[in-house]
This record gives sequence, C-alpha cells and structure tokens, in this order.
Amino acid sequence: MNESIFMTNNLWMMISTILVFSMHLGFATLEAGLVQKKNVVNILFKNTMIVCIGLLTYTVIGFNLMYPGADYAGGFFGFSGFGLSVPEGNPIDYAGGNYTYWTDFIFQGMFAATCATIVSGAVAERIKLMPFLIFSVVFVAFCYPITGFWQWGGGWLKEAGFYDFAGSTLVHAAGGFAALAAILILGPRRGKYTAHGIRPIPGHSMPLATIGVFLLWFGWFGFNGGSVLSANPMAVSLVFVTTSLAAAAGAVTALFTSYFLFKSYDLSMVLNGILGGLVAITAGADQMSPTDAIVIGGIAGIIIPFSVVFFDKIKIDDPVGATSVHMVCGVWGTLAVGIFGVKGGLGQLGIQFMGVASVGVFSFVAAFIIMYVLKLTTGIRVSEEEEIKGLDVCEHEMSAYADSPAEQMAGFKM
Amino acid sequence: MNESIFMTNNLWMMISTILVFSMHLGFATLEAGLVQKKNVVNILFKNTMIVCIGLLTYTVIGFNLMYPGADYAGGFFGFSGFGLSVPEGNPIDYAGGNYTYWTDFIFQGMFAATCATIVSGAVAERIKLMPFLIFSVVFVAFCYPITGFWQWGGGWLKEAGFYDFAGSTLVHAAGGFAALAAILILGPRRGKYTAHGIRPIPGHSMPLATIGVFLLWFGWFGFNGGSVLSANPMAVSLVFVTTSLAAAAGAVTALFTSYFLFKSYDLSMVLNGILGGLVAITAGADQMSPTDAIVIGGIAGIIIPFSVVFFDKIKIDDPVGATSVHMVCGVWGTLAVGIFGVKGGLGQLGIQFMGVASVGVFSFVAAFIIMYVLKLTTGIRVSEEEEIKGLDVCEHEMSAYADSPAEQMAGFKM
Amino acid sequence: MNESIFMTNNLWMMISTILVFSMHLGFATLEAGLVQKKNVVNILFKNTMIVCIGLLTYTVIGFNLMYPGADYAGGFFGFSGFGLSVPEGNPIDYAGGNYTYWTDFIFQGMFAATCATIVSGAVAERIKLMPFLIFSVVFVAFCYPITGFWQWGGGWLKEAGFYDFAGSTLVHAAGGFAALAAILILGPRRGKYTAHGIRPIPGHSMPLATIGVFLLWFGWFGFNGGSVLSANPMAVSLVFVTTSLAAAAGAVTALFTSYFLFKSYDLSMVLNGILGGLVAITAGADQMSPTDAIVIGGIAGIIIPFSVVFFDKIKIDDPVGATSVHMVCGVWGTLAVGIFGVKGGLGQLGIQFMGVASVGVFSFVAAFIIMYVLKLTTGIRVSEEEEIKGLDVCEHEMSAYADSPAEQMAGFKM
Repeated sequence: MNESIFMTNNLWMMISTILVFSMHLGFATLEAGLVQKKNVVNILFKNTMIVCIGLLTYTVIGFNLMYPGADYAGGFFGFSGFGLSVPEGNPIDYAGGNYTYWTDFIFQGMFAATCATIVSGAVAERIKLMPFLIFSVVFVAFCYPITGFWQWGGGWLKEAGFYDFAGSTLVHAAGGFAALAAILILGPRRGKYTAHGIRPIPGHSMPLATIGVFLLWFGWFGFNGGSVLSANPMAVSLVFVTTSLAAAAGAVTALFTSYFLFKSYDLSMVLNGILGGLVAITAGADQMSPTDAIVIGGIAGIIIPFSVVFFDKIKIDDPVGATSVHMVCGVWGTLAVGIFGVKGGLGQLGIQFMGVASVGVFSFVAAFIIMYVLKLTTGIRVSEEEEIKGLDVCEHEMSAYADSPAEQMAGFKM
Repeated sequence: MNESIFMTNNLWMMISTILVFSMHLGFATLEAGLVQKKNVVNILFKNTMIVCIGLLTYTVIGFNLMYPGADYAGGFFGFSGFGLSVPEGNPIDYAGGNYTYWTDFIFQGMFAATCATIVSGAVAERIKLMPFLIFSVVFVAFCYPITGFWQWGGGWLKEAGFYDFAGSTLVHAAGGFAALAAILILGPRRGKYTAHGIRPIPGHSMPLATIGVFLLWFGWFGFNGGSVLSANPMAVSLVFVTTSLAAAAGAVTALFTSYFLFKSYDLSMVLNGILGGLVAITAGADQMSPTDAIVIGGIAGIIIPFSVVFFDKIKIDDPVGATSVHMVCGVWGTLAVGIFGVKGGLGQLGIQFMGVASVGVFSFVAAFIIMYVLKLTTGIRVSEEEEIKGLDVCEHEMSAYADSPAEQMAGFKM
Repeated sequence: MNESIFMTNNLWMMISTILVFSMHLGFATLEAGLVQKKNVVNILFKNTMIVCIGLLTYTVIGFNLMYPGADYAGGFFGFSGFGLSVPEGNPIDYAGGNYTYWTDFIFQGMFAATCATIVSGAVAERIKLMPFLIFSVVFVAFCYPITGFWQWGGGWLKEAGFYDFAGSTLVHAAGGFAALAAILILGPRRGKYTAHGIRPIPGHSMPLATIGVFLLWFGWFGFNGGSVLSANPMAVSLVFVTTSLAAAAGAVTALFTSYFLFKSYDLSMVLNGILGGLVAITAGADQMSPTDAIVIGGIAGIIIPFSVVFFDKIKIDDPVGATSVHMVCGVWGTLAVGIFGVKGGLGQLGIQFMGVASVGVFSFVAAFIIMYVLKLTTGIRVSEEEEIKGLDVCEHEMSAYADSPAEQMAGFKM
C-alpha cells in the first residue's frame, strides 16, 4: 500500500471517530427527551460524563485489555500494560495497517463508552448519580474490553468463527444485557406499575428525542462505516446502503405494527424502530444485500413494539426502551448473520447464538454483581422524596428549564 | 485515474451523503420550530418518515427512473427495472467513474426525499398524516425522478443546454411548485385570514428553527459540494466559498429588507434569507465568482420578505415559507445562471427559463393531480375540531412536551 | 507531493471547514441555553448574523490583512488589497501547498468570526443589537486579522518564536480579552449584584447548553485537527487524542472542584470544564503526549469554577462564563506550551507569556476603544425597561417560545 492510500484510509477512520463521537450527543438528546422534565439535568450530566470517563478509562486500561496483542491466556483475557504507548518501530506501517496507532485508540475509545450510555437511559429517573458513574467506570474499564477482546482482539470467539461486524453483540447486546441487570436490581420508577394497571410516563420533549435518533443515524455511518477499518470504496459504500435501508425499513414496519397494536401513529415507536433497524444490521452490515438489509431492519421494526409491551407486562421499567432496542434487536441482528447473506447457514447460526449468549451472560452477570455491590455499599436508588421532587433539584440544585431569574436554582453558583 | 484518487473521490461522495442526510434533521427541526406547539409531533413524524420512505421508494423504483442508462424514450422517460443491481463488469471502474455504484445510489437517494420534505412544511398543521405519506411515496417514486432524468439522467433538458448544478430547479423549485399546488388544494389554516386581516401564527420554538437553518447550511456543503461528483480540489473548494457567501449575503440583505418593511429585527426573515441564498446559489455554485455569489445570495435575501408578504396577501398560507424559499429563490437561482458567470447570456437565460418552467409546470400539475385524487378518495384535511385541538393529540395521542406524568398521553403505550 | 496526496490534504481541510462552521451552531445553542427565556431570540439573532458578517468581512478585507504575503511593515501590519483573487500562476501548487486558495480562505474565514462569537455570550441580555453587530464588523475586519498576522501570517510573534498551534491566544484569549473590555464598559445585568449579595440568573435551557458544548467539541476536531494544515496521519490523529483527552479531563476535574466548592453536581461547571480543557489544549495540541493533555485539560477544569466565582466576586457579569473559558484558559493553555511537551522550558515560557500578553493587551484596548466610541455615539445598552421586559419583545417583537396563536408576536409579519 502506498502513502496516499494510507492517508485516505486514516482520514476516513478519523472522520468515523468524529461521527461516533456525535452519537454521544445523540444518546444525550434522545434520553433527555424521553425522561420527565424534572430529571433532565441529571440525564444530561450522566451522558456528558460517560463519554469523558469512558475516554479516560479506556486510555488507562481499557484499550490494553481489549487489544493486548499476543499477550493473552486462552483467548479469554489479556493485558498489555497501563496507558498509551506507540508501538516500537515505524508507528505508521504502510504495509501492515490502514491507520495510525492514535487513530486506532481514539476510534475504539469513542466506541467504548457507548455501552455505559445504553445503560444510562434504562436506569434513568431513579438511580443515584455517583454510583452510576462508578458503575460506568468499572464497566468501561473491564467488562466491555474483556468481551470485546474475545472477538475484536482476536480471542476465543474469533477463533470459533463468530461474526459481529460492528457490534450488535459486542456493543449493543452487551450494553442491553447490562441494562437489564441494572433494572432488575434497581426496580421500576415509583407509580409506574399500579394496582390499576400500567401508568404511562411520557417523555418531556419529542423534538429532543427526534434530534437524538437522527444524530444516532448520522453517527452510525461512522460506527458501521468505520468498522470496515479502511476507506475501501465498495465495502464502505455498501455498508452505508445496508445501514440506511435497515433503519428506513425499521421505521416503516414499526409504524404499521404500532398502529395495529395501539391504533395511533406513535412517534416513539417509529424512532425506536429506526434504532432497532440500525442495531440489527450492525452485526452483518458488510455481508448483506439491500434486500437482506430491508428484511433484517423490517423485522427489527416489528419486534420493537411487541418487545416494549412485553417488558412493561413483566414490569421491567425501561424509560427509553434501551433493552428492546439494544438487547433484543442486538440479539436478532447477531442471529441474522447466520440466516441471511453469504454466511447464512445452520452451523453459523449456532455459532452466532453461542456468541451473543456468552457475551450476554457475561455482561448481565458482571453488571449484576457491580450494581449489587454498589447497592450494598453506597446504595443505588434515590429516596422516595427525591424521586418525586426530581433528581435535578435534589442532586444538582438546578432545573433544566429555569423560567425566571427569581428561581433559586442557578446555572452558576457563587 | 489511479486507485488512490478513486478512493478519495469516493470518500468525499460518501461524506457528502452523510451531510445531505443531516439536512433531513435540519428540515425536521426548522419545520418543528415554525409550527404551533400542538402540531409538533405531527411534523416530526412526517419528516422522520419522509427520509425513510424516500430511501425505500428510491431503492425500488426511483433510482431506475432517474438514471435508466441508455434505455429511454425521447429524453422524457426511461426505466431500467426494479431494485438495485450492481452493473455487470467491474463495479469499480477506475477509468470511467469517481465512485462506486452503492455510493451513487445512496447519495442520490438522500437527495430524492428532500422534494417531499419541502412540501411537508408548506402543508403543515392541517393535512392528514396518511394521505400526506401516500403523496410522498408517489412524488418521490415518480415525479422527482422523471424531471430529474430530464437533466441529470441525460434527458431532453440536458440536451437542450439547460444548466442546474445541484438542483435549484430539479430539487428546490420542483418541491416548491409541488408545495404550492398542495396549498391551493388544501387551503389555509383556520383563522389565518380573517375579516379583520391576517392573523400571525408564530412558530413555537425559535431555537429549533435556528438549529434547523444551521444544519441545512451544514448539510449544503455536501448538497452542493457533493454535486461536483468528485473531490476535485478547485471545484469543491470554490463551491464551498460561493455557497457560504451566498448564504451570508442572504442573511444580511434579509435583515435590512425586513427592517425596512417591518421596523424590527426579524429572526425568521434572516433565517429564511440564509435559506434563500443557499437555494439561489445552488444552480450555479460551481460557475460563480465570490462576488457573483454575494450578489445572487443578496438578491435572494431581498426577495424573501417581499415574497412572504406577497403570498400572505393572496392568502397562500405557508407556515414555514417554503414556497418563498424553495420555489421563488429556486427560480431566481436558475435564471441567475443565465445572467452571471461564464454561462451568462440571453440565449442561456432563455434556456434556463424554459428549464425551470417545464419542471415547475410538471411538478405543479403532478402534485395537483395526486393531491386532488387523495382529496376525493381518502380526504386530505383534518376536521375543524382536530385542527383546533391539534394534530398531536388527535393523530398521535401524545403531546410534544408532556409536562407531568399525570398526563394521559404517553410516549410508550401499553 | 503527488496529486492524490494533495487531494486528500485538501479534502481534510474542507471537512475541517465544515466542522469549524458547526461550532457557530454550538456557540448559538450554548449561549441561547445559558440566557433567560426573554432574551433567546436576541442571542440567536446575534450568533446567526456573526458568522454571516464574519464571512463577508473576511472576504472584503480580513483575509488580506491576516495573510498579506510579503507586503508588510515590521511584522506588525500588512495588507494585500481588497477582495479575493486567486494568486497568479497555478492556483494548485502541488509542490508548495496542501490545499487550494479557496480552501485556505474558507477555512480561515470560519475561524475569523469565532472571536466575535465569544464576545456575544459575555455581553448577552443587555447590549443593543446594532451596536454589537457594528462592533463585530470592526473587530473581525481589523483586530482579529492584525493579531492573527503577527503569528499565523508570519509577523513579529512568529519571528520571536511564539507558538500557538490552533489559537488558544490568537482566537480564544483574543476573544476573551475583548469580552472583558466589553463587559467593563457595559456593566452587569440589572439585579445581578445586589445589596443582599449575588443573585444567580440561571440559563433557561440546559438541553440547549449541553447540545452546544457537544457541538463545540465536535467542531474542535476540525478547529485543532484542521490546524495541522494537512491530513498528515500521525499529526492529525495525535491532535484528535490530545484534544479529546483534555476535554474529558476538564470535565472530571470541574466536577470534583465544583462539588468541593458548591456541594452539588453542577452541570454548567462540567460543560465549561470541557470547554476550558478544549481551549487550553489548543495552543499545543500537536506538541503534547496524552498524559500532558490530561494534565493541561485537568488543570483547566480546576481553574474554571474558581475563575467563575472570582469574576462574580469582582462584579464582572458574564452570563456564559466566556472570560473564564476563553480568556483564562486561553492564557493557561498558551503558557502550558512553555511548560509541557518538547517546547517546555523557561525561555519558551517567557516568549509564550509575551505573546499572550501582547495579543491580550491589543485585543482588550481595541475592543475597549470600539465599545467606548459606540457608547458615546449610538449607545450600547438597552433601557432599564427593555432589559426587564426582555430584548426579544423589545428589539425583535417576537418571543422564542410562542405558546399560542393568540400571541401578538409573530414569526412572519404582514
């Protein structure tokens, strides 16, 4: 490979980094839009901190756990020391790689924090701030990199033939299973499941939620497109097509499915249908034809409304639908690699099942243990009074929308 | 051309695709900001669905109508079969093209839906959801690709010497004339034109509207810059300069013109001045000097306030000013190609007039027929009661800004 | 250099241009979020106009003052004539440059307006619109280009060995010192400093403010990454890493510092901590190791809360914290080049101090004179009644959030 092609590949990976970064704003606005007005500062605070904590944690330890090089034990665990250091020899190896060491780190670092962000929406409106941030540190530092290593670092799942192009399992299902564990320990929001039935708690701003979904789609061009790990023209442009068609199909089927179920045009369902389609295509975005992509995304859009209803029936209270979008559609997309495309086949389907099951179990158990330890030590849930008054006033002494200067809460304290 | 240059060209076209995608978020936020609070979910729903429907429709039929290859009849119509299929032979032809088949499709697909989006703002706050979505399907599937073929697909307008670099006519005027037809059939919002005069109906969120305009300008770097169809350094960078200067000039002249007319500093006019400048430069963004661009954009900024006032005088009720921005400034920009720049001249001006007139008449008549048929069959207008209560509650059973959990409307239904 | 590498370099500079453009939306949303509801249209209007005015002014005169070529006097001042003109000879010099003349202009033009934007937040909620826009024209036309020429145009600071990679001094401190001068002449908002102490005036929308900070970080990839002035893989990717880690570290230390000071989790401080980290790393983003970047950004995050408190103690009323973020952290980041990294050393530290002091003094004095002249002629402050009623109604005859069609204020006037 020549210098010029290396530069173009590296440029695309840097741009993909920026796009994945923008997904953190997407998650922040989506989750802020879907919570109540009294908890908006809290969710913005968490989502802002997660990307910052995630990058720092990944610098110190995560990157070296996920990509330890040759230094690993049986494909389950490896570690190459703390901090960042450009490898010996020419850091730009025109022969062997498509991008620099720094590009590799920052692209992977932007991915790392998304797992914790998936959890943040699911536990919104009742979790204490600091325990959640501690959870995020531990999860991003250890859990995500270890399962990531199994596949992308060259570990045992990779050896076994598992395929997960851009992370339906390694990012989305991992985050989704962790979210489920966290919800189970934390319990539902007060007043959600009553003796008289399930009480809807609508999000406070649909424009924010819609902005979030568009930004996530926007960023997904880098999330999936960057996972080609080069600017290969046919590969990246095909990924753009499959990713976008799956999202579009998810919206259309979610529209009709939710209309069939609820007899109204439900914007939340359409938005989550798009996200479900995006999550589902992620495992095989480079393997599918446009028609495959439409079918995979379309099925995700059908799954979403049923899944949301199901979790509510069993009293799993997930304010943003993160388990439906990331866990359920992540599993579906992982399995779809064994059904559609050139890899489709019963053998591959079995391997895909094993892969998503093992990552799911690991993430669920790890998240459960971390949350449980936090529950026993710091406590993880705000008091009833705080939950009713809202986390913004109680944890942040400010409101998201101060209407007058007479309010006591201030953006800047003296 | 070598592999490396092909990769760079293809990369720029893929990035342009992402930028044009972001314009859909721009339209969504702009239109949401300019409607009343009670109709916000409805406009977000429509704009979210349009990009999804547009991509799917373009996959199935639109792309093959617009770029049928050699298979056409007299330059007015052609078709190359349903669905996508990579052409025989090497899909990456380093000698003949600048980007892959998939890049071509997804870039054009992101363009296609913008026509329908232009209409959505103009008919906001009183059109029924489903008929509008059906209109969008038909318009994006047939009307936009057919007139697009006339020029960009190598049809009769191309043969006649018409010039429309990035779509002042083919996208913006086409959408704007369709919007005008739709408004004429639909009628104004109730209470807009009264016996006592014209009642202003202000938009509910100027921050959303401003975000929308900035995002549209952001995306326009790809809309115009990508229309170079390569990463040619001089061509694309000149397009960046002319596009930005036209937008800037439109803002400044709209500021002074609207101050002259209304004696206040009108943010809506400045925002539409930017959009008018962007629409106007689009037909000749690659042909103009910076000074030409400033003049063309500046005249668009003068046109906007007069046009908005004029349409209100003749009781054409357009909540977002889409006809002024896209139709009027689209016509102006198309004609400007025959006045300014190297192509300027009376002969070219005549051809430009013929081009925008023929596309405008086709789009207007087609949209009129589709809307009229829908009016006779499904009906296109919500009831008086629904219009007064708002489309969000009536069509979506939710509000955009739920203030308390006690509200009955829910983001997620059970 | 070959054609292909030139194309890739030029492409990255064009993409950086788009990213820096998006910072103007970031500033608009950040500042809109941090002001009161009654002044939102006004701040949106100013931030929209600044980027437009900035581009036009830079076209006419600024670019030629900042990069006059050989035509200068003693390194303090130069001018190469009005307007834009592609240099004689081959405008694309594959041997001597990395990008076209147009790319150079539009990238620098997007930078130019940011100085004025920094001022707009600091003087928000009480400055008259037109005098502020006149200030912006003069500042962007003359002040920013002259000090910019001292360093980036090859003037005396460059000769003296001063180092400012992407503008901690030339953009941020310059804007910050100008903001300080403007605040001193303008005075605090009414009711901010009372006999009973300092009254907090909280921002009206924390989601808008958070969106703004994420967009600024997003744009900073182009602001710093583009300042490499090529797509050099190691250089740009290192800049991505140092920029992001400084931002992340600023958030974490601002969180703990503000908790230590105020005993609450203060979102505004975390957001400004991110910005402080970004401003501070800007002077040496290409010179620092990841560890250096974390330390520099981390110290900025500690500085922010103390600085905000300090300015309030001395009754410098800065609604958005622009002086703390841009002036104080700009100075800190400039000095840090003389402390950390390969340039660190007492001699360099002295030069850095001289550089930031001379630019700071020039910008402060120039801004002071312009504002003072405006105060004596047009007046710069709105009346007490206007300040209480809000600038939106008084200067723009509209409100940012019109709740009902019955309101008198209208988005579109008749």
